[in-house]
Amino acid sequence: MAPPTRPFIFDDTQIDRSQLRKTAFNLRWATVEEDVIPLTAGEMDFPIAEPVSEAIQRHAREGYLGYCPKLGFETLREAICEDLSNRSISASPDRILVLDGAAAALKAACRAILNPGDEAVTFDPVDFLLPHCSELAGAKVLRCPVSPIDGSINFEALESLISSKTKALLICNPHNPTGRVLRKEELSAMANLAEKHNLTIISDEVWSEIIIGTIPMTSIASLSDEIRKRTITISGFSKSDGLSGMRVGYLHCENETIFNKIVDFSGVLDTTSGATALSQVAAEAALKEGGPWRSSFVEHLKSLVPYTADQLSQLAGVDCPKPEGTFLLFPSVSAFDMDCESLAEFILTEARVAVVPGAERWFGSRAKGHLRLSVATSRSVVDAALERLSALWGQQS
Amino acid sequence: MAPPTRPFIFDDTQIDRSQLRKTAFNLRWATVEEDVIPLTAGEMDFPIAEPVSEAIQRHAREGYLGYCPKLGFETLREAICEDLSNRSISASPDRILVLDGAAAALKAACRAILNPGDEAVTFDPVDFLLPHCSELAGAKVLRCPVSPIDGSINFEALESLISSKTKALLICNPHNPTGRVLRKEELSAMANLAEKHNLTIISDEVWSEIIIGTIPMTSIASLSDEIRKRTITISGFSKSDGLSGMRVGYLHCENETIFNKIVDFSGVLDTTSGATALSQVAAEAALKEGGPWRSSFVEHLKSLVPYTADQLSQLAGVDCPKPEGTFLLFPSVSAFDMDCESLAEFILTEARVAVVPGAERWFGSRAKGHLRLSVATSRSVVDAALERLSALWGQQS
Repeated sequence: MAPPTRPFIFDDTQIDRSQLRKTAFNLRWATVEEDVIPLTAGEMDFPIAEPVSEAIQRHAREGYLGYCPKLGFETLREAICEDLSNRSISASPDRILVLDGAAAALKAACRAILNPGDEAVTFDPVDFLLPHCSELAGAKVLRCPVSPIDGSINFEALESLISSKTKALLICNPHNPTGRVLRKEELSAMANLAEKHNLTIISDEVWSEIIIGTIPMTSIASLSDEIRKRTITISGFSKSDGLSGMRVGYLHCENETIFNKIVDFSGVLDTTSGATALSQVAAEAALKEGGPWRSSFVEHLKSLVPYTADQLSQLAGVDCPKPEGTFLLFPSVSAFDMDCESLAEFILTEARVAVVPGAERWFGSRAKGHLRLSVATSRSVVDAALERLSALWGQQS
Repeated sequence: MAPPTRPFIFDDTQIDRSQLRKTAFNLRWATVEEDVIPLTAGEMDFPIAEPVSEAIQRHAREGYLGYCPKLGFETLREAICEDLSNRSISASPDRILVLDGAAAALKAACRAILNPGDEAVTFDPVDFLLPHCSELAGAKVLRCPVSPIDGSINFEALESLISSKTKALLICNPHNPTGRVLRKEELSAMANLAEKHNLTIISDEVWSEIIIGTIPMTSIASLSDEIRKRTITISGFSKSDGLSGMRVGYLHCENETIFNKIVDFSGVLDTTSGATALSQVAAEAALKEGGPWRSSFVEHLKSLVPYTADQLSQLAGVDCPKPEGTFLLFPSVSAFDMDCESLAEFILTEARVAVVPGAERWFGSRAKGHLRLSVATSRSVVDAALERLSALWGQQS
């Protein structure tokens, strides 16, 4: 391997806006007007790590892009097991299913576990995909309130939602949108509930590489063998490796019967679904060779994210807690006396900064009054956005 | 653009078996023992065209692989419309949906058109995906017999299967596994039935670039404006461009209501599905720059496929018609007095050649007694396989 030619710095010199304007969709640079700064979808403004790019180029140069194995390349599944073992989850490659994204994995897991008439319990607020995929499977979703300020969980409320119809508990750790890294004792309490009521735990850990505070990441499946056997752990390569457009994620499910059901529902057996050859090559390179780059990216976020939270909190009527994980900020905004959708629109129009409103459809009813900002970018892009927000606030006071 | 450095020849010098053993799954080189020649899944042994590989490498080098637009890159959808216009289908990019493979497109189309209690009519034999995706949507499938020898259609039988419950007619053109290119008059007769009984036509045209006989390819949607409006045309880049592992295909649907339903079911809106950035880059390059290479590949098949059919027909008890399209051969084999599954197993064990049995689950009940061979490889690979088959036949006589 040649040494990486791109330095591990995360400033404006690394961001090619003309490329982003052609390639970054989903509410980002390619979809907003040219003078708008998008702090919307959870993906980075930086190009992918050099060794990942090189692995893709090498494979493309060799020229063979034929059908892949149903569960995913074995070398990738082995690398995933190695990575899970770093999170103290013992897993074998034949219980790993590689799919076209963590969202696809969540959808397949929900379809395997949930049927019409069943109930699933998740949180409010939480990323829309958790309740959405449960509903796609036909289940009714009940939501346990978590504090939109610090993400703390009311366990009495949680247990009161569980009935004989409840089949799954869906958690997101680190939690999108609050950025909370779930405590080991919180996970233990949830695990106890799952055992007591015989629930499958579906744990979305797509943000698990982005730990920026002092709370260490704990995977719920690492708590005990018993819990590992009732957990489906899901992750992907969009947040920490910039591979959202490559659509590659995976799940681990120790229970063989459930694993086989997931495989069946996923569409990999009948060739209607699966991760592409180059997506898998990229994911494997990210796991095996992307570590130093990724650590350096997380270091960058460790200073940028709390800085941004502090700056936002300086604005009148804005309270922005510092997240413990993710590169998402989730301030409450009481300024301007507007609902969050109107406020996001107002900020876009007046300050030319795009943010995600804390709308019920994205996060649940308790996200109201909040905005979500994604800041996986350079300090100077963030500063430009903050300056615009500050000017807008100044005009109104 | 630099001129291509790889010559457009399709012989053994272009086939890297050590790479195929690492990359070609789905019953092919990476899944069989080292001394076996696989003539199984419908994909090529040749690496992809140079300009397609270069486009992928260029995009990977730029390093931005973020979220793609929901329907697919606009430049790709424009290129697809241009390609459809070459088949006399007038289409606009906002009625094109790019998905992760033609199979995924077929599945989404079936889910949008068919509901439990509905019926779908297709053929027997035909590739399993047509009835399978109809059944996944909850429909009952009725199958019109086609001649497994020449693929000709019994239209009286076809109309007799249509009732008030019938919602869709699913065709495969060129037809897998018989290799028949449907005649314009056959397509007109099917179109008339569709109009008379108000059916949606789902036309799988994934083989449409591989026309090797004298019958020209006609897309059913090109017959009239009226037919175009009731047709969903599906295609992809696996057969003619070697991109099966990149999982990229598309559909065209003129009817806005149905198109929106397909988009909804496909999973592109909620990020649970979609084609990857590099798959779309590859597909666009294949359409815009892959033409000369693809024509040259088809020229190669024009001599290789009928040659192989002739050679197979020399074997006692084998009748192998010459296909008009595809690189698939579908001989009837009455030798050895075995059902086709045992025969395929026998040929694998004794002659070390892997073929697909004409099993009911792959093609329907009328495929019995047939084998399917895929020969998108070099003349010398085919000759080696033929020699082994000939030796096996010789031993038995």
